[in-house]
Formats: sequence, structure tokens, C-alpha cells
Amino acid sequence: MLHRAIGIFDSGVGGLTVCKEVIRQLPGENLIYLGDTARVPYGTKSAQTVERYALEAAGFLVDQGVKLLVVACNTASAVALPALRERYRLPVIGVIEPGARRAAESRNQRIGVIGTEGTIGSGRYEEAIRALLPEAEVFSTACPLFVPLAEEGWAEHEVARLTALEYLQPLISAQIDTLVLGCTHYPLLRTTLQRVMGPGVLLVDSAAETASCVAELFREQGLERPEHGGQRDFYVTDVPTRFERVGRAFLGRELSKVDQVMIG
Amino acid sequence: MLHRAIGIFDSGVGGLTVCKEVIRQLPGENLIYLGDTARVPYGTKSAQTVERYALEAAGFLVDQGVKLLVVACNTASAVALPALRERYRLPVIGVIEPGARRAAESRNQRIGVIGTEGTIGSGRYEEAIRALLPEAEVFSTACPLFVPLAEEGWAEHEVARLTALEYLQPLISAQIDTLVLGCTHYPLLRTTLQRVMGPGVLLVDSAAETASCVAELFREQGLERPEHGGQRDFYVTDVPTRFERVGRAFLGRELSKVDQVMIG
Repeated sequence: MLHRAIGIFDSGVGGLTVCKEVIRQLPGENLIYLGDTARVPYGTKSAQTVERYALEAAGFLVDQGVKLLVVACNTASAVALPALRERYRLPVIGVIEPGARRAAESRNQRIGVIGTEGTIGSGRYEEAIRALLPEAEVFSTACPLFVPLAEEGWAEHEVARLTALEYLQPLISAQIDTLVLGCTHYPLLRTTLQRVMGPGVLLVDSAAETASCVAELFREQGLERPEHGGQRDFYVTDVPTRFERVGRAFLGRELSKVDQVMIG
Repeated sequence: MLHRAIGIFDSGVGGLTVCKEVIRQLPGENLIYLGDTARVPYGTKSAQTVERYALEAAGFLVDQGVKLLVVACNTASAVALPALRERYRLPVIGVIEPGARRAAESRNQRIGVIGTEGTIGSGRYEEAIRALLPEAEVFSTACPLFVPLAEEGWAEHEVARLTALEYLQPLISAQIDTLVLGCTHYPLLRTTLQRVMGPGVLLVDSAAETASCVAELFREQGLERPEHGGQRDFYVTDVPTRFERVGRAFLGRELSKVDQVMIG
């Protein structure tokens, strides 16, 4: 059981920021990553369609015999966790609870959340934060241009700064002290977002919080693989070329071995 | 036969710019439009995957008994026309030939082409222009941020102008006199693109050229429906809400009746 891999899926390259953190915090674990690049993105699609895609992606990983499933996509975490937990009999960790837990440490209880249309429309972050901190005021904004900006490699371009200024103005006016990066692409924009929000605002990276959450669970349940250097396998549903090229910046290293599979 | 509909498909809302032009130039025709919104976009996906999606989308329209198929997506036109023409026994019109035909009227024979990664990567515009104007110098650039900017409604925002400046600088330096808008989203950005390129550059709108091409074919072959006010039916593969909301700006009017279907 210990030697079984952790299964991680996302709509595309974004979940590699979660992968990167899991590798950093749990270097001995075997990982299997699936990016549903033939149907990316999930963030602009309906809850019904995203749930169907998430069940199919998870099904592929479960068939590989993984010991734990990480939903490294905020949109899928927002709309598909109940269906995934009902269908599959293994622990399923999404990125929203861990991010909300960290955000609930806000001192002034004024918290911003940014994400895709799907994630923001679901209201799940707000719900998760309020469950922990009932007095919190949560200000949520969808930022659809951040994903293509991150994928284009323009994270620190003047265009990214202007775009962030436009999206974040209401959150600056609301005087939040904590901003949840509710999309796995957004850690790439961290420098720009911090510059726009100012140094006093804590940026919560759901990717890092989720990896911590997995590490904690493994320690509690004695599930950690006691080896050095786990194996990492990457699968995508479209031809791997673009994933390999764009994914480097998200994983912070070369993608060694990426194979194409059919799901759904 | 005359009363059969024209079938038009695209990955999402973009092809509605082609629809708009077909309605303007051939107001008596019945239209059936399919937007593959569950799998949008096509522009960042591989030729292999886009060809599969295009065959499935076209299959749905052929099953409705359409008299002509319009591939209102530059990426699908770039990579899937041969497969579509081989599989289906009806006239198939893509958006690339009509756009190239107009571009080949360039006076200085220096022509720019902008589009998605898939369209630009295919080299099809360059090929089609050179077939008509062998001496032409063609300068092609992928502009991945234009689609999300158009969908966000930021077509005339300062962010769009800065983005266009960055992408188009090499085409300005190349002193082109004609720029092909090789993506059905780009007509929404026309004002910004003209401002950045300057008034001396002709912008070729593939949507309008394609509609003219359909009108011409109908006149030649006596296929035009001799009625006023055709019926227009819209289908999408995801929940219609977002398509209806975003599509208005592309069609230039409300979307009256949109139904969800499963394909593939």
C-alpha cells in the first residue's frame, strides 16, 4: 500500500503546481499525473460537464491502483468532490478545503478569493471559509484572463499587471488582508499579484496548502513511502507537445516522460 | 433541397461571427449552428484531436440533413478539411480559402496572418496565399490572448491595445499592407487592431469573406432559398448559459433558442 502512487489530476498543466509542491514536501512518493488536455479548460464549463470529466479522469487513475486521489483543479474540486467520493473508495483531497483553512487565519476577517468562472460561481470557497470563520467577509472575483496570461509566459508582463489592477481593484477597496489564489495557474502570477495587492496582503497558494494537507494525512495514517526519489509518470489526453513545453514553468523542471491516453 | 439548412460549426461562440455574416448576406436561409462548447477551444489542441472533434461535430449536422457545411473555425479549417471532405458527401466550405483569396489582392505582396497556435502552426494560410500569389511574403503570428480578451468583452480595453502592440510589432516592422484575421473571434477586436496597425493596413475578415463565398456558390448553383426570414437553430455540447451570454456580442443579436446535445 505504501508504495502505491498518489494520483493527481487537472484539466491541463495547472495542476503541475500542486505536483511540484507534493514532490517538494513528499520526495519519496510515486506520482501519477493526468492532464485532461484534450478538453481543457474546465473553468469556463458547466458544473455538470466538469463533474463528468472529473469522474472519467479519476477513473483512469483509480485503475492504476493509486492510494490517494488529489483533485489538483479548483473548478473540479468546487463541483465534483461529492460525486468522486461517492463513486471511488479511496481518500480524495481537493484544493479548496486546504486553501480555505489557511485563509481562515485572516486577522481582519476580510478575505478575497480569485478563480475561474466555474470556481467563483460555485461559491465553495466562501462556504468553506465561513464554515471555519463564520464572521468572515469574503469578496470573490473571477479572473478569466489569468490562465491564458500564465500559459503565454506573460506572468510579469505589463499586460498582466494592468489586467490584475482591473480585476483586483474591488478587493483592494475592500481592504482584504488575505487573498486566496483559487486556481492552480495563479501561483505563476504571484509576483504581479503581490505587487498589485501590496506587501500587507497574504497570498494563499492552494497548491502548497494541499500538498501540506497530503503530507499531514500520510504522517497521521502512516502512509508515507519511506524511500528516496519516487517515480513520476505524466499522462495527457491530447498530444503531449504543448503540455511538455508549457508545463515546464508550472513544474519548475523538465517533464521527463509524458504519454497520451484516451479517457471518457 | 433549397429548403434544407446550412450547417455551421465551430468550437464555441467564435463561429457566430460567420453566422452573422451569412444571415446578413443570405437572410432567407435556414441555419443550424453547432458550438462544441464542452471541448472548446480547438486552437491550442493538436491537429489529430481537432480532426476527431470536427468529424464528430460535422456528423451531427449531416444527420440533420444540411445542404452545405461551413467550418466556421479557422483551426478546424486548417487541419480537418481533407478528412471532412473524404467522409461526407456534401459541399464543405472552410474559412481559410476565402480569407486567403481576399488577402492575395495585396498591393505590396506583404501579408500578415494572425490566428491560434493550431492555425498558425499548420501553415495553411501561407500555403493558400502562396498558391494564388507565389511572390507573396507572408508573416504569421499566433495571438493566444486575443480569444480570451474577446470573450471577456475587453476588445477595446487598454489591455487589448497593449497585447495587440506586443503581438503585432513584428508585422508592423515587416510593413505589411494586409492583415488576415485568421480566427473567428478577431473581428470583435477590429477597432483595436486597426488602431495598432494604422489606417493603411487592410484587415481581412475571414467570416465576411466566407459568407460571400457561400452566397456566390449558391447563386452559381441555384441553391439559394427564395424566402424571407430563415429559421436559425443553435446547438451546443455544454449547458447553453455561457454561450447565450457571451454569444450575443458575436452574433450581434440575442440567441433565441439554444439546445444542448451530446456528440462524440
